[in-house]
Amino acid sequence: MPDSTLSPTSNAPDATVEAYVATWNETDAARRQAGIACAWAAAGRYRDPLMASDGHAGIDAMPALSEAEGLAAVQARFPGFVLRRTSKVDSHNGQLRFSWSLGPEAGPAVVEGVDFCALAVDGRLEQVVGFIDGM
Amino acid sequence: MPDSTLSPTSNAPDATVEAYVATWNETDAARRQAGIACAWAAAGRYRDPLMASDGHAGIDAMPALSEAEGLAAVQARFPGFVLRRTSKVDSHNGQLRFSWSLGPEAGPAVVEGVDFCALAVDGRLEQVVGFIDGM
Repeated sequence: MPDSTLSPTSNAPDATVEAYVATWNETDAARRQAGIACAWAAAGRYRDPLMASDGHAGIDAMPALSEAEGLAAVQARFPGFVLRRTSKVDSHNGQLRFSWSLGPEAGPAVVEGVDFCALAVDGRLEQVVGFIDGM
Repeated sequence: MPDSTLSPTSNAPDATVEAYVATWNETDAARRQAGIACAWAAAGRYRDPLMASDGHAGIDAMPALSEAEGLAAVQARFPGFVLRRTSKVDSHNGQLRFSWSLGPEAGPAVVEGVDFCALAVDGRLEQVVGFIDGM
């Protein structure tokens, strides 16, 4: 029951970010899609300098829909890479930011950046805008 | 003619941020209000951990409307303080971020932070969300 796992409690921003980070690292398609439904509002929008995706299916980006976008494509291109949250979740007014790194499990980060997120009233992600700090 | 001074050209994000920063430092009410109309879309929203303002009048926050919010109130509380942009403007997909500091003209910064902004199609600010890095 994805919708019941998050609620707008005081630690909702942290729980939402944990669910979001987990979707980046989940390579089982069914579990990743369930996680996306936990973390994201139905009309969620993702934007970074390289990718733009809308809605649960767009964010997951099954290869049949698009080979160029989405978590599935990122995982296919960078097998074994792990997304890690590297700062606390700093939130106010339904908005939050956190820093992250992406790279191989045992090696140094290949990309680092900041995600700026807006939460829907149910605590799920309405928008994620990613910025790159180093590559 | 505030609406004609900004257009969605390649350097629009920089020009918008310059116009926005200038409104923080403009103590003449009429010039500040004209600057706000240049920098902000009519339905613009400002959020930081301490202030929330909507629309041109709310962002300006004439004392008759509210003594607790807005640029006029900040200037009254911290006379001589200057807002400075301390990073480049990093933008993509109509979204941008930049770092700033606030403090006395000749002294060290009292507050530092990051603003995340969404631009309207005309290049003006639709939303500014500020986060504090140090105080």
